[in-house]
Amino acid sequence: MRMVDVIEKKRDGGSLSDEEIQYFIEGITDGSIPDYQASALLMSVFFKDMDEQERATLTMAMVDSGDRIDLSGIEGTLVDKHSTGGVGDTTTLILGPLVAACGVPVAKMSGRGLGHTGGTLDKLESITGFHIELTEQQFRDQVNRLKLAVIGQSGNLTPADKKLYALRDVTATVNSIPLIASSIMSKKIAAGADAIVLDVKTGEGAFMKTDEDARRLAEAMVGIGNAVGRRTLAVISDMSQPLGYAVGNALEVKEAIATLKGEGPEDLTHLCVELGSRMVVAGGKAETLEEGADLIRGVLEDGSALRLFRSFIEAQGGDPEIVDHPDRLPAAKEIVSVRAEQEGFVQTIGADDIGVAAMHLGAGRATKDEEIDLGVGIVLKKKVGDRVAKGEPIADVHTNGRGTDTAVSMILEHVLIGAERIAPPPLIHGDIQ
Amino acid sequence: MRMVDVIEKKRDGGSLSDEEIQYFIEGITDGSIPDYQASALLMSVFFKDMDEQERATLTMAMVDSGDRIDLSGIEGTLVDKHSTGGVGDTTTLILGPLVAACGVPVAKMSGRGLGHTGGTLDKLESITGFHIELTEQQFRDQVNRLKLAVIGQSGNLTPADKKLYALRDVTATVNSIPLIASSIMSKKIAAGADAIVLDVKTGEGAFMKTDEDARRLAEAMVGIGNAVGRRTLAVISDMSQPLGYAVGNALEVKEAIATLKGEGPEDLTHLCVELGSRMVVAGGKAETLEEGADLIRGVLEDGSALRLFRSFIEAQGGDPEIVDHPDRLPAAKEIVSVRAEQEGFVQTIGADDIGVAAMHLGAGRATKDEEIDLGVGIVLKKKVGDRVAKGEPIADVHTNGRGTDTAVSMILEHVLIGAERIAPPPLIHGDIQ
Repeated sequence: MRMVDVIEKKRDGGSLSDEEIQYFIEGITDGSIPDYQASALLMSVFFKDMDEQERATLTMAMVDSGDRIDLSGIEGTLVDKHSTGGVGDTTTLILGPLVAACGVPVAKMSGRGLGHTGGTLDKLESITGFHIELTEQQFRDQVNRLKLAVIGQSGNLTPADKKLYALRDVTATVNSIPLIASSIMSKKIAAGADAIVLDVKTGEGAFMKTDEDARRLAEAMVGIGNAVGRRTLAVISDMSQPLGYAVGNALEVKEAIATLKGEGPEDLTHLCVELGSRMVVAGGKAETLEEGADLIRGVLEDGSALRLFRSFIEAQGGDPEIVDHPDRLPAAKEIVSVRAEQEGFVQTIGADDIGVAAMHLGAGRATKDEEIDLGVGIVLKKKVGDRVAKGEPIADVHTNGRGTDTAVSMILEHVLIGAERIAPPPLIHGDIQ
Repeated sequence: MRMVDVIEKKRDGGSLSDEEIQYFIEGITDGSIPDYQASALLMSVFFKDMDEQERATLTMAMVDSGDRIDLSGIEGTLVDKHSTGGVGDTTTLILGPLVAACGVPVAKMSGRGLGHTGGTLDKLESITGFHIELTEQQFRDQVNRLKLAVIGQSGNLTPADKKLYALRDVTATVNSIPLIASSIMSKKIAAGADAIVLDVKTGEGAFMKTDEDARRLAEAMVGIGNAVGRRTLAVISDMSQPLGYAVGNALEVKEAIATLKGEGPEDLTHLCVELGSRMVVAGGKAETLEEGADLIRGVLEDGSALRLFRSFIEAQGGDPEIVDHPDRLPAAKEIVSVRAEQEGFVQTIGADDIGVAAMHLGAGRATKDEEIDLGVGIVLKKKVGDRVAKGEPIADVHTNGRGTDTAVSMILEHVLIGAERIAPPPLIHGDIQ
């Protein structure tokens, strides 16, 4: 087989065979196929797409390019969740306890990541003592005992995906549905997922700016999951404004705890019920989404999810008292209140801009080695459609001094207030099974 | 400027600015832009094309990436000819003397090349004593004196084109009109051409298999030439069957000599008049193509082109007597006559297959270091449309023992004889100015 023939076939719109895709991924992994041929193929895929069979084969070839986490000792169907990323998205911290309390095992491998705020790991580490250094055996035991454990990324998972991602980033081939979908799905499968629930964000603060693109991505991932024997369900959810009110690490942990107490923001709670019900169905604990939603609401209302969260923190060395005393979490030195400069209704809240404002405060990292400030961030006081009086607080800026003015002026600029009465945007834009 | 932004712009169908194209070519030349980004851009160009301005800028950026031949001491407008390549194409050897005899200087830089037969240099070197080792001064002096000289390729001409060509070859991006056109034009301009006449072949034995593709390529090159101040004219000529009768090095030299004596094959003579008249017009020695054709026919009929060919051979150390005694050229040991197995009319002569058959005999080289056998080759006896009797010779195979059976059976297979009376294909398919 010659790589140039594989490129030419895709360039001319052909479907690559399993052997051709495996040859490509093996060659990328062992270095026998040079980057310049890989990037030519990636650009051809950008233009000519891949069919369902190609996407599934590509995904599994990337899974097979490296190690897989051995979770075979865990009882039940392991369900993983993936969000395509947004601003103020605290769902993972809430969904873990919710779903685990329904009896579905959650064995989460989590990273730090780059972005407006830290990753799930950073957020969890804002709890004093919490650590993610578990052996694989400890990890499996904890999942069997509590149904919930979080471990840091380890092992050589999907090295082909890592190489391809790095290459896509510098060759303008990131934005390709089959490449995005296979990248996400390969990581979830290598991390041991038996079933996958996807939260594909749409809107200004999401990677996919339109419902149509979000739907294409969701359908691509659901198609791959089902083709490779992993039950996969997807929700398309709104990211035209930040999810919930909090944007920041400890601030989001506080919001997650409030949500587990039944006192969280309406949109965040609603989304957690939507995603949680799908995870429960995918995990085989409910037949229908309605049944799943009932289960999720049950463990939320009876406090069992909150109790499980407490046990989970304790099991991984953290201070469980933060559940009752969230003020023990890291806090910023100063809170600056941002007040409306006019009266009216909130027209838009630029999700991406609020995220960037939080980053200016130190809540996120742009490069891998940056330190993040766990206490800082933004707590919005309003959602799109809310009425605002002149001088009324629209957000609190939690700051340790860095970037305060920038954050304040970005909030004033991007929380748009106008005379028109406006309906809040729908939270769920689509549902793909 | 970031290369990834340049790739993205072209990927999305934008027109690259002069600065962006120059940045790319400079980066390719000095190695600061990696091959994987170059190949992603090349694939984007494959899909999204380039407009006239981009093509012209790309061409001149490649010219500027290396040295140019200094031909400034030569009087008159230097006209170069380029053929996109075919089987049995001996026009260069004939056109040089024809055009020079009309007073248009021809300062030819020639290579050996890969293919069915050798390049112009190989053919010239089948003349005993002929050499191409001239200093630049000797080269210029000879052009001024005789109007015709041939030199081997030297200097660091269009290094960016060399790098891009090597990359295109392994990334399935060879077949792109703007890339082919700029590659050809940059080499001609770097070699000192003031004006360019193009012979774009079309048909089974050509790189461009259809008239439409040949026309697009011809228009692209004429567009570039005129945009960068080099008067450029193009002819689209037939390559559905070999040009003339001879395919082989010394065999083609013999056919060229016969043509300069007015005794050559009709199609080859006709094409030389068509191309020669355009070279004479481009060189400013005639106003119209008719006037140019009259001049060319004049120097052919009065023997002055043949005399000039003789002086040219002598000036470069060759034996001028071969003009009167072509049997002094290298000859194969054996001639095998291939005879028709049925009667009828020649329907097709697979140009590419006849070329490959000649290669099996040793007439061409597939890799740079192969030796070629100057005496061997094929002399066809028929053209498409000719009547053939059963047992009548359709070709002579000139062989030194190697590949004879293969060549004979390929000729029998690819000179198709059928009952249907058929018209010969037109020689000239188009004319672009």
